[in-house]
Amino acid sequence: MLESPQQLADPTASAGPRRIYLDGNSLGPPSLDMAARMAAFVTDEWHADLIGGWNGQGWWDLPVAIGDRIGDLIGAGPGQVIAADTTTVLLYKALVAGLYLRPDRDARPWIVTHTGNFPTDRHVLDGVARQFGAQVEAVAAADMADAICDGTAIVYATHVDFRSGARLDIGALTAAAHAKGAVVVWDLSHSAGAMDLHLDRDDVDLAVGCSYKFLNGGPGAPAFLYAAERHHDDLVNAVPGWIGDAQPFAMLEEHRPAPGIRRMLSGTPPVIGLRALDIALDGFDDVDMADLRRHSVALTERFIELADRDLAPHGFTVASPRDADRRGSHVSLGHRDAYAIVQAMIAAGVVGDFREPNLCRFGFAPLHLTLNDVDEAVARLLELMETGAWQDPKFAERRSVT
Amino acid sequence: MLESPQQLADPTASAGPRRIYLDGNSLGPPSLDMAARMAAFVTDEWHADLIGGWNGQGWWDLPVAIGDRIGDLIGAGPGQVIAADTTTVLLYKALVAGLYLRPDRDARPWIVTHTGNFPTDRHVLDGVARQFGAQVEAVAAADMADAICDGTAIVYATHVDFRSGARLDIGALTAAAHAKGAVVVWDLSHSAGAMDLHLDRDDVDLAVGCSYKFLNGGPGAPAFLYAAERHHDDLVNAVPGWIGDAQPFAMLEEHRPAPGIRRMLSGTPPVIGLRALDIALDGFDDVDMADLRRHSVALTERFIELADRDLAPHGFTVASPRDADRRGSHVSLGHRDAYAIVQAMIAAGVVGDFREPNLCRFGFAPLHLTLNDVDEAVARLLELMETGAWQDPKFAERRSVT
Repeated sequence: MLESPQQLADPTASAGPRRIYLDGNSLGPPSLDMAARMAAFVTDEWHADLIGGWNGQGWWDLPVAIGDRIGDLIGAGPGQVIAADTTTVLLYKALVAGLYLRPDRDARPWIVTHTGNFPTDRHVLDGVARQFGAQVEAVAAADMADAICDGTAIVYATHVDFRSGARLDIGALTAAAHAKGAVVVWDLSHSAGAMDLHLDRDDVDLAVGCSYKFLNGGPGAPAFLYAAERHHDDLVNAVPGWIGDAQPFAMLEEHRPAPGIRRMLSGTPPVIGLRALDIALDGFDDVDMADLRRHSVALTERFIELADRDLAPHGFTVASPRDADRRGSHVSLGHRDAYAIVQAMIAAGVVGDFREPNLCRFGFAPLHLTLNDVDEAVARLLELMETGAWQDPKFAERRSVT
Repeated sequence: MLESPQQLADPTASAGPRRIYLDGNSLGPPSLDMAARMAAFVTDEWHADLIGGWNGQGWWDLPVAIGDRIGDLIGAGPGQVIAADTTTVLLYKALVAGLYLRPDRDARPWIVTHTGNFPTDRHVLDGVARQFGAQVEAVAAADMADAICDGTAIVYATHVDFRSGARLDIGALTAAAHAKGAVVVWDLSHSAGAMDLHLDRDDVDLAVGCSYKFLNGGPGAPAFLYAAERHHDDLVNAVPGWIGDAQPFAMLEEHRPAPGIRRMLSGTPPVIGLRALDIALDGFDDVDMADLRRHSVALTERFIELADRDLAPHGFTVASPRDADRRGSHVSLGHRDAYAIVQAMIAAGVVGDFREPNLCRFGFAPLHLTLNDVDEAVARLLELMETGAWQDPKFAERRSVT
C-alpha cells in the first residue's frame, strides 16, 4: 500500500517536469478528495446548518475527536490529545502547564533544553522564562540528561532536529527527567505521521506537534497537544477560555476548568482547518505506524547510499546520522553552494529546501513516496551537478522568506 | 445594495420553511462562491504550489493583508491589524501587551473591567491577572469611567454586550482611561462588520475581535488584533514565535521582534481559515460602513417597534437599549419561557438563540437581512404564541452545548 498511495494527491502533477516532492516535512500535499470535500463542508455543513453545525455536525467535539485520531498515530490512548491553535501557542501552553505541575521546584525553576532547536521553540521558551522567572539551561542534545538536576522543573526537547534529522530517544530522556522529578515537554513536529511513537508507553508528560507536515493537514493546520491522563486534574491552561470551561453555556464569569484534556482548549475551535485535517487523517486509516516507519527508514537508507555513491564526488556530505535509529524521516546534505543547488533542483522538479547555513534538506514522507522517487531525485541532482546547470547565476540570487 | 445581498449565500434555503437567519451574530453564512473558491484554493494553491505557496500565493502575508482589509472596516489605517489565532488567544496577547505598555504602574497594577462580560473575556483576564500579579476591579459598565484611578494600567471592555446588545462609547471611555494614563483593550466581537467603528480617530490602544460573526469568516475563523502604530515599538508578544521574528528564515535562537504589527504574530498562519475569511471579506467591498450601520439601526428599530406592538401582550419585554446610539446590531427579548420559545422558533425557521437566564436573542446582520425579514420573523413568532405551538413539551427539553 505504501508503494501505491492512492489516497493522496499526486504531487508529481505540475506544469514542468514530473515533480518529486521531498518537502512533505514542511508542507504535506492534499489528499485527492480534499477539494471536493472542502466544498462539501461549505455547502453541506456551514451553509446547510449554520449555527446548528456546532451540535449537528460535531464541530464542537472536533478538537478532541481529531485529537484521538492523532493519538492513534503517536501511541496515545483516547482523551489525551487535542487539535487546536498553532504549534507555537500550544508549546507555550505546554511549558506553562509544566511549570505549574512542578510548584515544588526552586523559586527560579530550571528548564533544561538543547541548543540548535527550531527558532519558535526557543522564542516561546524564552518568553515563558521571562514571564515566569524561570532559568533556561541550553546544552548540546547529547548532554541534556547530565544537565538535569534536582531543581529542574522541565526538560524540553525536540524529537527530530529540523536541520539534521537527528532523533533523540524519547523513552530514555523522559526516564532521566523523571528520575530527578522533572516533567518532559516534547516537540514532535518532525516526527508525527512519519514514524511510530509511543507516548503512553514512554511515560511522556506533555508533547506538542505540527499537523501540516507529515500529517498533511494543510498550510497552517491546527497543531496538537498531548497531556498524560495522570496530569489532567493538575493542568493549568495559561490562556483559559470558554471552550475549556466545564459549562461553557452556563456563561459564568468564574472559570471552572473542564474535566480531562478539554481544559487545555482556549478559543472557539478553528473548524475549517480542523475539517481539512480530519480529511487528511483518512490517509492514515489502516496504516500500521511501524510499517510506515520501516518504509521511512528504507527511503532514507537508499538516499544516503546513493548520496555516498553519486553525490559525494560533487562535494556533498551527509549531515544526518547514519544510524537509522538515530534519524528521523529527512536527510540533509551539506554543500558549500547549497542555496543555489536547491533552487536549481526545484526548477528541475525536485522540491527540497535550503536551511542555513549550508544544508540541502530532503524530506521523505513515507505515506506518498517510493524508492523509485528517491532514485529519480538523486539522478536529477546528479545531472545538475554533471552538467553544471546549477551554476546559472539566477539560482544564486537570494529571495526573501521561504 | 443592502436590500439585495447577492454576494452572500441565501440562508433562507433549507429543507423546512424559508429560513430567516437571525444568528449572524453567532455565525455568519458563507458567501455564494465560498464552496467553489475553497475547492479552488485546494487545487490551485495548496496542490499546485505546495511549499511554494508561502511566497507564490501570498500565504506568508495573509495575516497582515487580511488585517488591513479588516482595518478598513473598523477605522484603522494600514499596518495596525493582524488576523490570527482565536479571539481568546488574541485577548490574552492584548492584555499582556497592555501590561507591558504600563510598566510604571503599581507593583500590582489594576485592570478595570465591567461585569456581565462574555465568559472568555473574563476567564482570560483572570488568567492574566493570576500570572502577572494584577488586580481586577469589575464594576457595572456605566461605572467604569469613575473606577479608573492613577494605578490603573488597563481598562478592558466589550463594545457591544453579548446578552443585551448594549453598546459602550469607545471614544469617551478611551479618553477617560488616557486621562489617568491607562491603556484600553476593546473587545469588538459583537460590533465588527455590523457598524462603523473609528479606532484611529478614537485613539484606541489595543482591540480584538471575532471574524466568524458579522464578518462571515466561517466557524472558528481566525480572530483579529488591532494595535495603534504609536505603540508598535513597545509591544511585547506574550507568545513570541518565529512568524513574529524580524528574520524568520535566519533561524536564529534569539528572538528579535519584527518591526510593526507583525511582532504580535506567533505560530504559522492558519492559511485555510485565512483564505476563507479573505473570500468572506469580499462581501464588504464597496460597502460604506456608515450606510451599513444605518441599515442595522433600521432593522433593530423595526424589530423593537413590532415587539412592543405584537409580542409584549404575550409576555415579552425588550431587554436591549431603546436608544439606537446605545445599541449594537442585536436585540434581546426577555420571556419567562425563553428557552422553549427559541426552540419552537428555530423549528419554525426563525433562527435566533437562547441566552441564560431568560433571553431570546435576535441578531440583525445588516449585510444580508431586509426589513421584510424582520416583519416575517415577528409574524411567525406571533403565530407561535397565538396558537400555543411553542408549548409542545419537546421544545422545553434542554439539550447540551449550543
